[in-house]
Amino acid sequence: MKKYNFYAGPSIMPEFTKEKVAESVLNFAGTGLSLIEVSHRSKEFVAVMDEAVALVKEILKVPEGYSVLFLQGGASLQFLMVAYNLMNKKAAYTNTGAWAKAAIKEAKFFGEVVEVASSADKNYNYIPKGYVVPDDVDYFHFTSNNTIFGTEVRKDPDLKVPVVCDMSSDIFSRPIDISKYALIYAGAQKNLGPSGATLVIIRNDILGKVDRPIPTMLDYRTHIKGESMFNTPATVPVFGCLQTLLWMKEQGGVEGIEKANIAKAELLYGELDRNKMFTPTVPDPEDRSRMNVTFVMTEGNESFEKEFDVFAESKGMIGLKGHRSVGGFRASIYNAMPLEGVQALVDVMKEFEALKA
Amino acid sequence: MKKYNFYAGPSIMPEFTKEKVAESVLNFAGTGLSLIEVSHRSKEFVAVMDEAVALVKEILKVPEGYSVLFLQGGASLQFLMVAYNLMNKKAAYTNTGAWAKAAIKEAKFFGEVVEVASSADKNYNYIPKGYVVPDDVDYFHFTSNNTIFGTEVRKDPDLKVPVVCDMSSDIFSRPIDISKYALIYAGAQKNLGPSGATLVIIRNDILGKVDRPIPTMLDYRTHIKGESMFNTPATVPVFGCLQTLLWMKEQGGVEGIEKANIAKAELLYGELDRNKMFTPTVPDPEDRSRMNVTFVMTEGNESFEKEFDVFAESKGMIGLKGHRSVGGFRASIYNAMPLEGVQALVDVMKEFEALKA
Repeated sequence: MKKYNFYAGPSIMPEFTKEKVAESVLNFAGTGLSLIEVSHRSKEFVAVMDEAVALVKEILKVPEGYSVLFLQGGASLQFLMVAYNLMNKKAAYTNTGAWAKAAIKEAKFFGEVVEVASSADKNYNYIPKGYVVPDDVDYFHFTSNNTIFGTEVRKDPDLKVPVVCDMSSDIFSRPIDISKYALIYAGAQKNLGPSGATLVIIRNDILGKVDRPIPTMLDYRTHIKGESMFNTPATVPVFGCLQTLLWMKEQGGVEGIEKANIAKAELLYGELDRNKMFTPTVPDPEDRSRMNVTFVMTEGNESFEKEFDVFAESKGMIGLKGHRSVGGFRASIYNAMPLEGVQALVDVMKEFEALKA
Repeated sequence: MKKYNFYAGPSIMPEFTKEKVAESVLNFAGTGLSLIEVSHRSKEFVAVMDEAVALVKEILKVPEGYSVLFLQGGASLQFLMVAYNLMNKKAAYTNTGAWAKAAIKEAKFFGEVVEVASSADKNYNYIPKGYVVPDDVDYFHFTSNNTIFGTEVRKDPDLKVPVVCDMSSDIFSRPIDISKYALIYAGAQKNLGPSGATLVIIRNDILGKVDRPIPTMLDYRTHIKGESMFNTPATVPVFGCLQTLLWMKEQGGVEGIEKANIAKAELLYGELDRNKMFTPTVPDPEDRSRMNVTFVMTEGNESFEKEFDVFAESKGMIGLKGHRSVGGFRASIYNAMPLEGVQALVDVMKEFEALKA
């Protein structure tokens, strides 16, 4: 039976990435040595890092004046690095879910946080709009995709203050205008590669403006200067990211990928809106994530939840269980999920509906 | 031609580790999914983390009251986490090389550093002895093995103050008495696994004694509570560590491994002491590292350096070039290097000597 991987992260990777990683763990770049035992300073691995950085710049059309870094520690370490490096006194954050809250918590170690908007009142099932970001903040931070709650902001903000975005779970899912951002960060393990790598895209001129001393490893300038090799990078994760970047280019870049993602999201949300057994947790179609589709059993059908869980898994649908703070189900349909996988899930939902009719 | 990997790190891994990683990237734990796309919260990956922690405890005989963590960021992030979490006012450090210096630099962000001993006067080619650690420091920090300079401390210190040790390049190379240490850290990429994982062994009762607020990700208590899963761990590196731990157990644990390491070191240093073409950079046999054997061309033979470099590489000896701050050569003969690899290098040295005689 074919299995489909709907995990929220680490999550489905392209076959190409998996094959290339497996192959290179046995024989890396024709060296006869394994990817896991080759020095990061070897010419073969330096070429991997260089090509990965170049491809990020090419695929996302990163303008001059920005650096692309592969770091460790995930978005969770970025929550504090952002504030450590950029906050003098005050920063603005939107509170759109668990990760946004975690970012706010870290920023408070370094200064005042102005929470300009929140969707906490409705368990984060919508994207707040119409809020105002004060002009006197050091930066504005938001989370573009809320993995747990299934909401997404797809419009690049146009602000006077530097914009910082946690794009962990939707980077590379659509074109973005990098010039609207001062800093973008993303854990690799959704659309990019194995966990252990963190992508950072940063406009160089926003650094060096805070007074506090910054420990070496937490200072973005360290990693810019060291070209992501100040210390030993996570070589397998970075190599995996490169393979996915190569794959993305083959898919027509983020423009091609966006088309596929729209088709997948329309298919799944279409079924959720039609099928009376299920209800999507995000009411406004504009706010619905194309990456994480969250849904529950429709009121009155709650008793079928466990049964659907077992039924779907028996049909090869893996990782559908929703996060405990939302309940129900979450289908993560990242870039690497083929339309056929979404169709398979839709078929299972229809089949379940027929069984219960 | 058989190649032997003498890289300083990432470095030679057991065949077992390489095979298991490659296999699991294609099909992890019989799930039909790849290791790089399986949730860290899946029961299969949780079992990997649990077993890795249990094996570290078993192999190193970790006493009650200690936690074993797999973090990200390498030893370089530990340099600052140690001071962030443990330094109130003052800490003692030995300065035995580049990594010790880097650790000292980070500690100075958080308080006063008492440099109790240094071997900088002789380009770090010996281990300082007979120094006194003041009783009023928050902790004493040292580097057990100096990868770049080829020196090693193999005696567990017996001090009244908490002892912190960077064992990145010699952990698991011999038995250690964990009870003598408050905190041990080690980047994985020498004796343990792929780069991207960092092992920390910490006595729980040394935490919570500093006044400064500690950002969540830098607080060891976060990771103890989260059992190394507060945020997404680097799943492939941790899986690789588990495979090497299983392999180490097969080798008779650190007791068996130490025997093999002594035999390898004796063979190589024996040749260096005999062969007039080469001179080991560390004069005192007691201070010589069993992990990184550093040597230069004997005075008068300097002109042969480039030629030996090319000759050795042509015979399949990879990664022998010494660090630029020492020059010459460095043969890293970590746990996974078989005696046969050291013998092959010795044969190449003899052959080169005969060529030049």
